[in-house]
Amino acid sequence: MKRTAYIGQLTPAHAGQTVTLQGWVNRRRDLGGLIFLELRDRSGLVQVQVEPDSPAFAQADQLRAEYVAEIEGTYQARPESQRKGGTADYEVIAARVRVLNAAKTPPFELDKGDSVAEDIRLKYRYLDLRRPEMQRHLMLRSKAVASITTFLAAEGFVQVETPMLTKSTPEGARDFLVPSRLNPGEFYALPQSPQLFKQLLMISGIDRYYQLARCFRDEDLRADRQPDFTQLDMELSFVEQDDVLELNERLLSHVFQDALGVTLPVPFPRLTYHDAMDTYGSDKPDLRFDLAFSDVTALFQGGDFKAFAEAPCVKVIAAPELTRRQIDELERVAKQNGARGLAWLRREGDTFTGGISKFVTAQTAALLDLTAVPDGGTLLFSAGPWKSAVSALGAVRLALRDVFDLTAGGPAFHVSWVVDFPQLDLDEESGTWTYMHHPFTAPHPDDVALFGTERQGEIRAQAYDLVLNGFEVGGGSIRIHDPAVQSQMFQAIGFTAEQAQDKFGFFLDALTYGTPPHGGIAWGFDRLVMVMTGASSIREVIAFPKNNRGIDLMAVAPSVVDNTQLGDLGIQLATASE
Amino acid sequence: MKRTAYIGQLTPAHAGQTVTLQGWVNRRRDLGGLIFLELRDRSGLVQVQVEPDSPAFAQADQLRAEYVAEIEGTYQARPESQRKGGTADYEVIAARVRVLNAAKTPPFELDKGDSVAEDIRLKYRYLDLRRPEMQRHLMLRSKAVASITTFLAAEGFVQVETPMLTKSTPEGARDFLVPSRLNPGEFYALPQSPQLFKQLLMISGIDRYYQLARCFRDEDLRADRQPDFTQLDMELSFVEQDDVLELNERLLSHVFQDALGVTLPVPFPRLTYHDAMDTYGSDKPDLRFDLAFSDVTALFQGGDFKAFAEAPCVKVIAAPELTRRQIDELERVAKQNGARGLAWLRREGDTFTGGISKFVTAQTAALLDLTAVPDGGTLLFSAGPWKSAVSALGAVRLALRDVFDLTAGGPAFHVSWVVDFPQLDLDEESGTWTYMHHPFTAPHPDDVALFGTERQGEIRAQAYDLVLNGFEVGGGSIRIHDPAVQSQMFQAIGFTAEQAQDKFGFFLDALTYGTPPHGGIAWGFDRLVMVMTGASSIREVIAFPKNNRGIDLMAVAPSVVDNTQLGDLGIQLATASE
Repeated sequence: MKRTAYIGQLTPAHAGQTVTLQGWVNRRRDLGGLIFLELRDRSGLVQVQVEPDSPAFAQADQLRAEYVAEIEGTYQARPESQRKGGTADYEVIAARVRVLNAAKTPPFELDKGDSVAEDIRLKYRYLDLRRPEMQRHLMLRSKAVASITTFLAAEGFVQVETPMLTKSTPEGARDFLVPSRLNPGEFYALPQSPQLFKQLLMISGIDRYYQLARCFRDEDLRADRQPDFTQLDMELSFVEQDDVLELNERLLSHVFQDALGVTLPVPFPRLTYHDAMDTYGSDKPDLRFDLAFSDVTALFQGGDFKAFAEAPCVKVIAAPELTRRQIDELERVAKQNGARGLAWLRREGDTFTGGISKFVTAQTAALLDLTAVPDGGTLLFSAGPWKSAVSALGAVRLALRDVFDLTAGGPAFHVSWVVDFPQLDLDEESGTWTYMHHPFTAPHPDDVALFGTERQGEIRAQAYDLVLNGFEVGGGSIRIHDPAVQSQMFQAIGFTAEQAQDKFGFFLDALTYGTPPHGGIAWGFDRLVMVMTGASSIREVIAFPKNNRGIDLMAVAPSVVDNTQLGDLGIQLATASE
Repeated sequence: MKRTAYIGQLTPAHAGQTVTLQGWVNRRRDLGGLIFLELRDRSGLVQVQVEPDSPAFAQADQLRAEYVAEIEGTYQARPESQRKGGTADYEVIAARVRVLNAAKTPPFELDKGDSVAEDIRLKYRYLDLRRPEMQRHLMLRSKAVASITTFLAAEGFVQVETPMLTKSTPEGARDFLVPSRLNPGEFYALPQSPQLFKQLLMISGIDRYYQLARCFRDEDLRADRQPDFTQLDMELSFVEQDDVLELNERLLSHVFQDALGVTLPVPFPRLTYHDAMDTYGSDKPDLRFDLAFSDVTALFQGGDFKAFAEAPCVKVIAAPELTRRQIDELERVAKQNGARGLAWLRREGDTFTGGISKFVTAQTAALLDLTAVPDGGTLLFSAGPWKSAVSALGAVRLALRDVFDLTAGGPAFHVSWVVDFPQLDLDEESGTWTYMHHPFTAPHPDDVALFGTERQGEIRAQAYDLVLNGFEVGGGSIRIHDPAVQSQMFQAIGFTAEQAQDKFGFFLDALTYGTPPHGGIAWGFDRLVMVMTGASSIREVIAFPKNNRGIDLMAVAPSVVDNTQLGDLGIQLATASE
């Protein structure tokens, strides 16, 4: 016998009909000789009533929580006195109950999954995934996958699977290695990204490529990372930056509409890296709220307050009223993010009190005017070299967001582009230049002449990040297709021709066989789905994640293997003495 | 400036219009002062004519084979005398040519890719993939992916990504291992299939799951295997075998229609394993042609011809006229497949000559009647124990197909199901029973009582294979959801409770927490696409495959890594003395 509907498909129009449902016993109550069951499938819950004289009673009486059952009965409105509106006003009067499987008592109450230790949830992930919250995450993720596939196929993109057993890619994180049994002493690397392969596909003339690609990085798993993760990877030939951005705006809007019913306003605002840092102290600013910095460097320059007078950069942010304790906490945040301290002022009428108030009498009027801080509100200052001054205040800005729930009442989602990243990054310690994204990112054509000059730090990359609610959910660039520019780039970062050949040989060779102009992007798909679902961690949108030691607590992986197996692979465990 | 169309999108309706095209120079010819270019993009080829007095001439004159160019000009019909019908009747008269990139002379002529050594093609795969044939393969594959995604999403399937860094799965091939740096001395396994995880998703109540899953098996790469491959993996809850088959018939038909415009007749014919073996000598019979076996066991039983009289099974196949050399070759095939020899007869009028003709005088009339072999045709016999007799003749049947091109004139594609596989397989050498697919395959409910009896070899599994043109392109089963049946199965294959727990512990535990009836299937996606495209190998439908030593000749992987990196992972190369 077959299910006639998922529970969530039942509507008042089914009233009076015989339905067959299949699912799990969410709860059982016995009342006045009757059995009340709550039956659950992935789409919803429904109450089932089994009367004492029903032929279904004996079977129903065997049911316990999480048993699997098939129930046939009449879908009908509950007694008028019990109705509250909605589907809960309907119930099934069972005519037949079939126990499809028994269940041991679960190790935690599914209804209380939110408060269960994560280790328990991960060990019994198959039960944790029964929770409607988790099912919603996986279903939304799946919807996004289908939505992306449909959209990109219609746009002429070709899905291509790139190798999983491959060679180091230029992302520069640590590789996971796979010993080769057929080639003893040699190792594959699991891909950190399909970067080189997608560029090779452009050289192949595939023209438009996409893939939901599994990627691997053997990093120390701080915070919210997984050793393997999924990116939506795409690459386009014969395009410029605007083409990639415009297409991605349409794609993301399409996905939000399909999966959430949310309309994203397009085009997405574009901020330069400089403006994003200068105004919000972040290259992935959360723009669901404003709290922009004001620049007061000039206001203090050459003045009496030495700490500000000599600083290359002084920024201020106007916060709500803060207690001393809150200010102390924010100062801690600022210091953690590279500031020496966090100067502050409280507005009282038309003057400032507290903090550095005795040093700013000359600037009071200007500060009131510039910041428009309300009476009782607090000004918070960050001073120092530009990048550290703005970064520290950017961290304070986010802390204020969390303390005052500043995103409430704003849009649920805010998407923006950050563009014009620097092409090169100066390593302050070693004084050497390195690439900001990867060495194949194309510089802005107007800036190429700066390569090799003392102003090469000013070269803008044709690189862009997609930012959603303060998370970087995508990043990409136009790539270098001109071998001469590629040489300049390698020179700028101190690569000799030999080093470049050694590291990227086959790819540099490929570049010389007729490479079209091309560019692309990769979305951090786990993170995107996390933000879309409102989940607190990427672990909440991955069916079977690792914990922060890289361990799968359910399957118990990694694990020891026997020496024969290692011997077959031509390896052994490192001896302790080494 | 932008491309106005792909070359393949140009139609006679564009005649007289200015078009902008981007692509590769497929060929250049200079004739009577004019330059003729063949421009290629992924969609097609077009001839471009550049006149000597054209402002485009100087740029066009720089172009060589495989240069990347942008061409603007007028699309127009060629002179009437040169028209042959079709798009080749049109050409572009260039007004502007822009060289987008130069190209070194390719190491092989793309037009002659078919005859180039595969090693060269694989080393320069990015050039090999420029060939229209290869582009067609990748585009058809991509179409199939989109078609599958759309269909299954509409059918309520949830796409879920299962772990890539995991633990051994029960397929029983060798695992690829990945050393864990964070857990020194421990190893992940790359998944051989998502089998356990997809069953866990059913236990989670996901109800319907699919994934295009990358799978890994460290096997010796005979013939047409890759160390990693792609399967379309799916699983459904609350279903019986017919539900899975019916859904897959609709899905495969949908994919063939979308990607090839081919209508597959549904339902697909279903053969039992016994009938497929008995009639065609294969559990994946190629049914594009018939050439079924006739059973002549009874005809010879107790007769004078001892070799047949005492054989448990004698099968005959009616072949066209064969030379002695062809018969010798077929006998070699039969022997390679376990036969002692290949008896034969030639029909001449109403008698048989040659081979074993002097032993079959009593059976002549019956053989003529039964086999309807035409005059001059050949009968080929296989005798012995059933399985080896039919298998050997099955191999002969396929050899006849290839010699006589027996599929010509038949349907391009023939799909069938093979069902009712045996649940258990007797290892003749050790005399022990093992599982045929994997230990979670459900037995036919009518046969469960045979567990533990001497007739347990007769238990039919609820397992099914999807067969296309003689290739197994899919396989699956209904799974065991009843812990009692699971115990019987483990006993039947000689697993103690401890061994089962040791090998599949967390999964067996999960089974007890409320498992719905469920079943599924996995398609060998590479092989399916190979058959759909008519390619000769799965390497032809994989963008960047390994060779048969597991080596990526382009990226040069696997490769040696330095000892520091191994030390970080807690491993070292095995010392030579061990």
